[in-house]
Amino acid sequence: MNIAIIRYFLGWILNVEAVLMTLPLITALVYGEQSGIYFLITLAICGGLGFLATFRKPKKTVFYAKEGFVCVALSWIVLSIFGALPFYLSQEIPCFEDALFEVISGFTTTGSSILTDVEALSRCMLLWRSFTHWVGGMGVIVFMLAVLPLAGGGYNMHIMRAESPGPSVGKLVPKVRQTAKILYLLYFGITLAQILCLLLSGMPIFHTLCLSFGTAGTGGFGVLNDSIASYTYLQQAIITVFMILFGVNFNVYYLFLIRKPKDALCCEEARAYLGIILASTLLIGWNIRHLFPSLGLAFHHAAFQVGTIITTTGFATMDFDQWPELSKTILVLLMFCGACAGSTGGGMKVSRILIAVKQVKKELGNLLHPQSIKILRLEGKKLEHNVIRSANGYFLAYALIFTASLLLVSLDNFDFTTNFTAVAATFNNIGPGLAKVGPTCNWSEFSPFSKYIFMFDMLAGRLEIFPMLLLFSPGTWKKGF
Amino acid sequence: MNIAIIRYFLGWILNVEAVLMTLPLITALVYGEQSGIYFLITLAICGGLGFLATFRKPKKTVFYAKEGFVCVALSWIVLSIFGALPFYLSQEIPCFEDALFEVISGFTTTGSSILTDVEALSRCMLLWRSFTHWVGGMGVIVFMLAVLPLAGGGYNMHIMRAESPGPSVGKLVPKVRQTAKILYLLYFGITLAQILCLLLSGMPIFHTLCLSFGTAGTGGFGVLNDSIASYTYLQQAIITVFMILFGVNFNVYYLFLIRKPKDALCCEEARAYLGIILASTLLIGWNIRHLFPSLGLAFHHAAFQVGTIITTTGFATMDFDQWPELSKTILVLLMFCGACAGSTGGGMKVSRILIAVKQVKKELGNLLHPQSIKILRLEGKKLEHNVIRSANGYFLAYALIFTASLLLVSLDNFDFTTNFTAVAATFNNIGPGLAKVGPTCNWSEFSPFSKYIFMFDMLAGRLEIFPMLLLFSPGTWKKGF
Repeated sequence: MNIAIIRYFLGWILNVEAVLMTLPLITALVYGEQSGIYFLITLAICGGLGFLATFRKPKKTVFYAKEGFVCVALSWIVLSIFGALPFYLSQEIPCFEDALFEVISGFTTTGSSILTDVEALSRCMLLWRSFTHWVGGMGVIVFMLAVLPLAGGGYNMHIMRAESPGPSVGKLVPKVRQTAKILYLLYFGITLAQILCLLLSGMPIFHTLCLSFGTAGTGGFGVLNDSIASYTYLQQAIITVFMILFGVNFNVYYLFLIRKPKDALCCEEARAYLGIILASTLLIGWNIRHLFPSLGLAFHHAAFQVGTIITTTGFATMDFDQWPELSKTILVLLMFCGACAGSTGGGMKVSRILIAVKQVKKELGNLLHPQSIKILRLEGKKLEHNVIRSANGYFLAYALIFTASLLLVSLDNFDFTTNFTAVAATFNNIGPGLAKVGPTCNWSEFSPFSKYIFMFDMLAGRLEIFPMLLLFSPGTWKKGF
Repeated sequence: MNIAIIRYFLGWILNVEAVLMTLPLITALVYGEQSGIYFLITLAICGGLGFLATFRKPKKTVFYAKEGFVCVALSWIVLSIFGALPFYLSQEIPCFEDALFEVISGFTTTGSSILTDVEALSRCMLLWRSFTHWVGGMGVIVFMLAVLPLAGGGYNMHIMRAESPGPSVGKLVPKVRQTAKILYLLYFGITLAQILCLLLSGMPIFHTLCLSFGTAGTGGFGVLNDSIASYTYLQQAIITVFMILFGVNFNVYYLFLIRKPKDALCCEEARAYLGIILASTLLIGWNIRHLFPSLGLAFHHAAFQVGTIITTTGFATMDFDQWPELSKTILVLLMFCGACAGSTGGGMKVSRILIAVKQVKKELGNLLHPQSIKILRLEGKKLEHNVIRSANGYFLAYALIFTASLLLVSLDNFDFTTNFTAVAATFNNIGPGLAKVGPTCNWSEFSPFSKYIFMFDMLAGRLEIFPMLLLFSPGTWKKGF
């Protein structure tokens, strides 16, 4: 393990975090809030430590896959620990583990909160909370790759593969840095479009910024206690549309950008994703129609809820825990499905579900005709053996971690629905679950132990399990090969 | 599709069922129960139809894998439909779908019941109900292979593979018929041992027979409304031991039989199985100690409950729905784990879990050292690619069917815990779940639609999914290759 290069890398992470802190700092200045001082303190700490750690370039530049995984896992942990400082120092969240939970929930774009009263927070804190979603959505390391002159291409791919969601990383263009830049430009552009739409709809600028950050990262932190419920229907509809847009594979937008709309429209994963959204919305809308004065309103809320869950955003306009069981079950299943690979959404990703369905079909075919050979295809391309193997590895690791978390969390003695959906909501980076962690509730009742389990699950979910597993596996730290 | 041979095969199934009916008939004669007449009627119907169907041997003896799957799936359905007749004709279960549910629950060794008052049934009905467990446990078709002079070896393997549980069928000896005979001898022997033990403990002969059938098939139907709660501790302990014994891979007993105790003791799956039982019992025993006057009693009930769930038997001595959440969660997880492959238990099977864990370990190793090549081994032998592929296919199909069932059952609008554990309990052939399907409850409240879903799940669970999926897949019925 090349410790020096990891130290150097984490130093840059701290430098970036120091820069990110300027945004809440400016917010504090604009609104004249005293708690801005804590961002200044944290900025100084991050900047100072970052400076020390990056002062000397590492001599050994050996960088294997395992350094990549460790770097990514540690980056997210370091980012979260220092990101929690402003909340803790200002005592707006008096307990450190709660502050850490909140920030990890932010960076991993989960959106689960331990706050019982969101509106009590100062504006700069609220903005930081939502801004972590935006940063975590596309990935802070992808950002670093895009803008910083870190060592040449050698290790970039290792790192990007470890942070990016989905069964296989499609580089848009041959160079990793170019790819990262294009992704961030697209991300920035669509976020800007949402900010404009919300401003035009008459939303105040502060709300607009926070909600757009939360939507873009498919996070889910809001600024009001009732999440999105008290905004106008138009504003809710705008958020619905943008949530769904941010759950689409960014390759699709890139294809539009380079004027290949035909290829973009043929994207198998995006079509499946939109198909699932449509079907779920229709089913739920019909199922909850008796709860609303008009059918249109039922479908409005159904679409919002489906969008918020499948993209793993986690905003809420309604307490869907009160809906009929069919609707609730559909939403729970969508939690696992998740958005497209290569989007900012979490969950298992639609492409993995497609790979699973195709494998079952193939298995059926194999049983009928043991002699025949069938090739699995996705997006028209042959699915390589190692992509299938890694998707299956992911599913199995997913099931094992889910199981272990469920077991450990059950020590708190809450009911099965709460525990099951709480693990599902954190591991898939969604936010709300059912029962005690429903859309109108929060996570403050859990024991510190359970909170740490959830923090692990959020990080493991965002980084797609293996970086976190490798960080804690002894093999990674063994000397030599 | 060779329809003639399927007709011929199903004919033999009916003949066998006619023979099986003699046991409840004798019971009726012994206890002088009038309802025995309905067994006579059913016997006549089965025998008559069976005679007609097997009168002419099929000319075309072409028999591919798909005929094997269809034969097995249809056999179990036919077996269940005619097996339900006595209940329905006697009106002891007045509704046909309830009678069918009860018998499918019997043959698939699930043990879920729609009866609110078990003790109201006549003794011959109770015996038939428990006897279906014994027949279904080892498999009626394996039985046919063992005793009937059906066509030579050609298609035997196809059929045995489709009915036997576990990721790969280990033939004990080169000939399928020999293997089937050995399996039934072992099965018969261990059942006899249990009957003797229970008789010696002072249990009446009728109870002894019914409970031994239920234990041997890892079924779970009892003859009293409180399942096993009102028997003595000794009797409960005997049942615990035999439940666990019937969950062990029968290969182990065969190895003992041919005097290879060393090989038997090295069986990786059986060791893991016993390890899981020990660990779960200790955890649950400790977790529920405050509910009992002594620690011994807590461990007694913990061991019974762990044994009944992991072997997917489903007897109950206690309402574990009242236990702390940790214990309940462990039990729910054990539902999915299941017993050993090649035993009479259901669930995913310990060997598949082992394959899953090994795959995750391998995946972690691959990520660290992309160049290295690692071979997966189970029981000291290399795991072939197609075994791993079929295990993964099973997991994915399992998840898809589980998901679909959960969704369809949620239409009844019961709570999530009920629906989730109800699907888990039927799909894994266990019996009781939590909440509304807990050990003290029954399945009568569900709608007919949900009951049919559960019936499908029970059959799919017992036949390990693919025969049932193929039966309903259009590709199976297409002409030609």
